[in-house]
Amino acid sequence: MIRTILIVVCTLFSFIASINAKENSSKNIIYMIGDGMGANYLTAYRYWIAQQPNHTINSTILDKLWVGNAMTYPDDDTFVTDSAAGATALATTTKTYNGAIAVDHQHQPLHTLLIEAKKRNKSTALLATSDITHATPASFYAHQKQRNEYNQIADQLYDNQWQNKPLADLVLAGGLTYLKRQDRNLLQEFTRLGYQLETDFNKLQNLNKLPALGVFHDKGFDYALDSQQNRLALMTRHALNLLANPTTKQNGFFMLIEASQIDWCGHANDIACALAEMHDFARAIEIAHQFVLSNPDTLLVVTADHETGGLSIGADGEYNWNPQVLNNVRHSLPILGKKLASSESPINTWYALTQIELSEEARAELTSIQSGEQNKYVNFARKVINQYSLTGWTSGGHTAADVPVLAAGADARLFYGFQDNTQIAEKLFYLLSR
Amino acid sequence: MIRTILIVVCTLFSFIASINAKENSSKNIIYMIGDGMGANYLTAYRYWIAQQPNHTINSTILDKLWVGNAMTYPDDDTFVTDSAAGATALATTTKTYNGAIAVDHQHQPLHTLLIEAKKRNKSTALLATSDITHATPASFYAHQKQRNEYNQIADQLYDNQWQNKPLADLVLAGGLTYLKRQDRNLLQEFTRLGYQLETDFNKLQNLNKLPALGVFHDKGFDYALDSQQNRLALMTRHALNLLANPTTKQNGFFMLIEASQIDWCGHANDIACALAEMHDFARAIEIAHQFVLSNPDTLLVVTADHETGGLSIGADGEYNWNPQVLNNVRHSLPILGKKLASSESPINTWYALTQIELSEEARAELTSIQSGEQNKYVNFARKVINQYSLTGWTSGGHTAADVPVLAAGADARLFYGFQDNTQIAEKLFYLLSR
Repeated sequence: MIRTILIVVCTLFSFIASINAKENSSKNIIYMIGDGMGANYLTAYRYWIAQQPNHTINSTILDKLWVGNAMTYPDDDTFVTDSAAGATALATTTKTYNGAIAVDHQHQPLHTLLIEAKKRNKSTALLATSDITHATPASFYAHQKQRNEYNQIADQLYDNQWQNKPLADLVLAGGLTYLKRQDRNLLQEFTRLGYQLETDFNKLQNLNKLPALGVFHDKGFDYALDSQQNRLALMTRHALNLLANPTTKQNGFFMLIEASQIDWCGHANDIACALAEMHDFARAIEIAHQFVLSNPDTLLVVTADHETGGLSIGADGEYNWNPQVLNNVRHSLPILGKKLASSESPINTWYALTQIELSEEARAELTSIQSGEQNKYVNFARKVINQYSLTGWTSGGHTAADVPVLAAGADARLFYGFQDNTQIAEKLFYLLSR
Repeated sequence: MIRTILIVVCTLFSFIASINAKENSSKNIIYMIGDGMGANYLTAYRYWIAQQPNHTINSTILDKLWVGNAMTYPDDDTFVTDSAAGATALATTTKTYNGAIAVDHQHQPLHTLLIEAKKRNKSTALLATSDITHATPASFYAHQKQRNEYNQIADQLYDNQWQNKPLADLVLAGGLTYLKRQDRNLLQEFTRLGYQLETDFNKLQNLNKLPALGVFHDKGFDYALDSQQNRLALMTRHALNLLANPTTKQNGFFMLIEASQIDWCGHANDIACALAEMHDFARAIEIAHQFVLSNPDTLLVVTADHETGGLSIGADGEYNWNPQVLNNVRHSLPILGKKLASSESPINTWYALTQIELSEEARAELTSIQSGEQNKYVNFARKVINQYSLTGWTSGGHTAADVPVLAAGADARLFYGFQDNTQIAEKLFYLLSR
């Protein structure tokens, strides 16, 4: 009897406590997408950081927050999604065809998390290392039947409004080509609405209040490996400072952060490039996680739209992986190829830019390539770096691999275990609607 | 003040309730290992079952129980584990070198979950579709410096005892070659100890009480695809019936179930073979899960020792996967090769055994292979099946991919999220020791 009474009292108390705890529910949402970041990218990043096998290997920030996995298949005649259908699922709860930006099969617009956040009076931010018109960020603010209609997508960054204001209070990304065109200058239009504007990434700090627009490159940023810069981490820190400003933070915020170029390195089967992007993303996640720790009313969710490249750690029957091979690779494959093609001594350039000792056979192959044959140099570098590091790839495109789901902070438990990518969006809509 | 008192009272009550709830903690442990079963095997199995993309795809039993992921690196000069070091980590909590069966670098024996279960007076069972002396089951009962010392490992199935009895009350696996040798007949020794013995798999039902030994093939079972039989599921059902017998179930049980041959199909880059093994494993997991649902004092944990083959779903730049190609493949690659090599009309045999329509080029290639060239037929079949289904592989060996962790029933929550493979064993030791 006493037991029963205690159960009733405690259940009631828990319920009341949970209502009181609502202040600690997810007022702020940080939604991070690693484009192309299949599970093996997390594994590769961990072992690359560890360098030495043979003793205890530490978990990375990505491992520590890893709570589940998600399916990514599109509503298409294929099991393998592209970034547009993948991002649409993650932004709207609806699967669609490959190429669609937040529209269904009938090209009707789908309701997005960004619009919902605005309806809930939240401050909003979009961050990406691609141009802002690229599939992932685009699927949060635009509705377009084909992802490559960049100008129409760019227009919607301004034209799609809630209460006479654009949907994003803060944009930090690339894409000047599409925002400042002969037929339309969106930068000017945003400025007229009161947005601060900055186009020089070194002057990011000039953006000191919302609304603000930082557009820094014609298209995407340079690769992290080529620019030697953790630009997503820098933008993440700056955005959190702006969003957490006392004057704007009353209703909380919704921020999308895309590590866009993991995917691009994956398409090129460029492991050194991919790891540098992962490193930038990991730094950005650490900054977001620190914010969550000091702001317990914040939810952090990290996932990917799909896997790129069919990456594997270990290949060709060898039971090993050699991340040391990658440590002194100074550039992404396209830049390596360019520098080799324009070098008077490709061998010297190779050693200067990779410090990878070549076998006699590989040395002969390198010297046999004619000056200027950039593609051949790229292919040579790709082959050597992957073979020597024992990195495997099965595709220059995407695969149907399930993707990791990471979560921390308020309501993170909702994301535990296995789920469909649309369910990630469903849970976020639910949290926004409470 | 009232709030504080309530918190104290409720915390105390929860603590007392948790002690009372001990009856519902994990008295029985079912530990299932899919050898080589990286995450992409779960994905492939799901989409193969679904067949059609383009609409809602159901989760499989593996998806539904998927709660976490685990690292698999060995304590070796490599990031990529073999099955021996992988199983040793999962059986003993200790990472060791590749090739080691439950011994450390100094070849000292490591304490295993099977011994611990015996110490706790539990009934014990070992099930595998390989020979019982293969690395994974061996690492639970034997201690051997090299995995291929099969006779010495076999001896330990009998010789390693607890209170004058072998460690396993039930064995269902292959391996007659190693258990019935010229120099020693272990079958006879087990029989003398009172073990029931059966060597004909069709008479599995003859084993009707513990202790019992079912050893059914010289080495491993035939592939599920070749035998058209879910033999692991059959053994799992039978073992649970024996273990749940009222006379034996008082102290609960510990059962290891290995789906050994997923790995073998992976090594051969044989996707049809791998999916048939996955299907058998999924049926076995379903049976185990049903047992958990009707016996809430049971914990089910499923994981893998490593990934095999660098499998990817989608390959060669194509955004698709075609499981339909695999539906009428009647045999594993070795058997296909054998049948093609001994056929008078390889083309007719090909169509009869695969129903895969060949391109003109492939047809010409098939007819150009000389009769009897079995390896060439195997390679041909591998290439066609993988290319047509868009299945990618990067290796004939293992990779460092993290592996899925599935759990259900009592204390399943302990296995949520990211962990090292040794931590899976640590948690199971903790649960056994309570």
